[in-house]
Amino acid sequence: MRHARIFMSLSVLGGTMTELVHSAGLFAKSERIDSWRVRAVKPVSYEVRVCDDAFDLQSTALLDVGGRSADGRLRRFLVIDQNVDELHGERIRKYFDHHGVDYHAHLVRVDETVKDFDTATGIAQAIDAFGIDRRREPIIVIGGGVLMDIVGLVANLYRRGTPVLRVPTTLIGLVDAGVGVKTGVNFNGHKNRLGTYFETSLTLLDRSFLSTVERRHISNGLAEILKMALIKDVRLFDLLEEHGSRLLDIRFQGDTAAEQRVAAEVVQRAVHGMLEELQPNLWETELERVVDYGHTFSPTIEMHALPALLHGEAVCVDMALTTVLAWRRDLVDEEQRDRILEVMRILELPRWHDSLEPGLLAAALEDTVRHRDGKQRLPLPVGIGDATFVNDVTAEELAVAVADLRRLSSPDAVAGLRPVAAA
Amino acid sequence: MRHARIFMSLSVLGGTMTELVHSAGLFAKSERIDSWRVRAVKPVSYEVRVCDDAFDLQSTALLDVGGRSADGRLRRFLVIDQNVDELHGERIRKYFDHHGVDYHAHLVRVDETVKDFDTATGIAQAIDAFGIDRRREPIIVIGGGVLMDIVGLVANLYRRGTPVLRVPTTLIGLVDAGVGVKTGVNFNGHKNRLGTYFETSLTLLDRSFLSTVERRHISNGLAEILKMALIKDVRLFDLLEEHGSRLLDIRFQGDTAAEQRVAAEVVQRAVHGMLEELQPNLWETELERVVDYGHTFSPTIEMHALPALLHGEAVCVDMALTTVLAWRRDLVDEEQRDRILEVMRILELPRWHDSLEPGLLAAALEDTVRHRDGKQRLPLPVGIGDATFVNDVTAEELAVAVADLRRLSSPDAVAGLRPVAAA
Repeated sequence: MRHARIFMSLSVLGGTMTELVHSAGLFAKSERIDSWRVRAVKPVSYEVRVCDDAFDLQSTALLDVGGRSADGRLRRFLVIDQNVDELHGERIRKYFDHHGVDYHAHLVRVDETVKDFDTATGIAQAIDAFGIDRRREPIIVIGGGVLMDIVGLVANLYRRGTPVLRVPTTLIGLVDAGVGVKTGVNFNGHKNRLGTYFETSLTLLDRSFLSTVERRHISNGLAEILKMALIKDVRLFDLLEEHGSRLLDIRFQGDTAAEQRVAAEVVQRAVHGMLEELQPNLWETELERVVDYGHTFSPTIEMHALPALLHGEAVCVDMALTTVLAWRRDLVDEEQRDRILEVMRILELPRWHDSLEPGLLAAALEDTVRHRDGKQRLPLPVGIGDATFVNDVTAEELAVAVADLRRLSSPDAVAGLRPVAAA
Repeated sequence: MRHARIFMSLSVLGGTMTELVHSAGLFAKSERIDSWRVRAVKPVSYEVRVCDDAFDLQSTALLDVGGRSADGRLRRFLVIDQNVDELHGERIRKYFDHHGVDYHAHLVRVDETVKDFDTATGIAQAIDAFGIDRRREPIIVIGGGVLMDIVGLVANLYRRGTPVLRVPTTLIGLVDAGVGVKTGVNFNGHKNRLGTYFETSLTLLDRSFLSTVERRHISNGLAEILKMALIKDVRLFDLLEEHGSRLLDIRFQGDTAAEQRVAAEVVQRAVHGMLEELQPNLWETELERVVDYGHTFSPTIEMHALPALLHGEAVCVDMALTTVLAWRRDLVDEEQRDRILEVMRILELPRWHDSLEPGLLAAALEDTVRHRDGKQRLPLPVGIGDATFVNDVTAEELAVAVADLRRLSSPDAVAGLRPVAAA
């Protein structure tokens, strides 16, 4: 009788290690079990790969994950940002046609305001209509961070998990949303209030898409790169200070090998730093995360200002505020403070928004405390390239920082700030 | 510089083992990395505990998981089936009042038709209004399988994961929905089309709630118990054959120690068998699952007949059909077939529904094949207490089984079927 068997073994079955422990010990026919403990570990593995052209006809990278349907067809459901489709749709379709793929391209007109569950269910309905074999027919998403977050959630929910591949087409997608495991939609006025952790099988980082991205959206992505620089990578900060303006102009492309090298290194360092921070803490078991820098007040600021501020812009306003706060705490000196604020200007990012008033910031901090399980766990920069955590920021301190930042970020003050490199 | 560090270690941090591998090997300043592989394992652990009275004032089981909020208050968000609240609300509230808990009870009028995302978002909105600290203030759900599935999904999504405790109040909740990790809502006419795997910290199995459950809902839960019996536990089948009718009458309570013992053993064997099957395959890495018996055609039958059939009733119709199919394949002999159909009658479960027509069954099988990644993987009983998998069921075979079952389950045939015990 199989039910009388006891599981105390740690076994690897289908890649999953599991263990079932009965608190009562051996289960004999007459014995009463009062409790069972189920233990298991779920292995997760995913790849983030740099490539020059995801839709090179010679490449099968996008088709190597997953398989054919039971009847032998190669079928894929694509979700494409409508704007990307207008600019790159032809070569994307040519790729799938070339490889004999039976595909459906579901187009979504994307901005932060569509990041809700209605958009997610619209995609799920389209998947139902196309029909996909669970497990072997991955969804392929081609678009920016917002679309990847939404489609990641749909993929997690659809039949409790359908594989997904990502081709980020924006800078924020390449260095942030495309490399982690977070999915989510905004809900009830709160940013990413509903979401999951769900890994993508493969993300292809293809800078060529950035050539058609609006200048403002390049700046948007540079905000997340600046974040990585500030908290852990002084060389990345130096690169942004020296080349940030040019990277914006050339949209991370470049005519010369030297320019290409800088663009590639900036993306690489940002991705590497991000993965280095994410991988030991993929499910945010540890809530003190340096990558949360710039993400304490910004969720509230972003949702409050919607659609005025892009995500990276709201993050930059948060970083400007907390840089000033760190300066008041002597964690950052005046020269470092001014270099940081000046690099934000070079990257054409806002350092101020009129929503920065004490009431909203207090509410933002309160919500963040709930999100970080009862403590502020607020990352602050220490000089340039390092960070620390504090739990004792007060409303008064925030009011001072707001007044400081208002003064420092005013047009006159901006003119007075000079990059150290040029000093 | 932290970014130049290399992660090749397998480390345990906050309970999470992770590994980051660069395909390019060591990352020196000038070196180009083309690919990163992130590997991690997520440990999961949860307890299912039998208890006599979950709301015994002396017990702190429900409050031992989680903690107090930053300001020292003990706050809990409860989701309670409205019907359960009418019957047991007083003692539930008394429990939380007694322990000084600041709670909000969110009531939901539940049936299968409310198992949708609107109900889920209604709960999420109420959580937002109450406010909970992520991680330390678990949601407590008190209700049946449908409510546990919905609240499990909400808990998974809310801030990407909020702990949840379950007190199932129906038989199907005690032996099925309450012991696994599946969450879900119906979508686009498909059962549980959107859902996740999310473990509950603790489930308390308290049979006392069954005393107020409608007779039909006891039968509904007995269907899932019968499933476990048929696929792996002949003693459980014998118990159902001998005591099933009485268990229905006494709603798993019982005046004598002997009756109590039978009721406890039936629940225990069903839970034990279920956990034994789930634990090595918690995320359904393996799609051949004996516990999917009765769940090949039933999702379609249930959604088609909504709200006429309860979940367990649809499962029983599926099991009746596939028992006959197994008999035609000589996997079950005629005597076993009749014993099985007779136990279904004893448990007051339907063995037939008028939606059993070839077109619907073919569509159901096709959808199940997509769900099981391109193969039927159809569990069939082998005698009583064992199972096998087949992948070659044809439309013709289904039509024969339908005709057989129509004949065998007609009122006259029912009268002709006699339990072997009484033969």
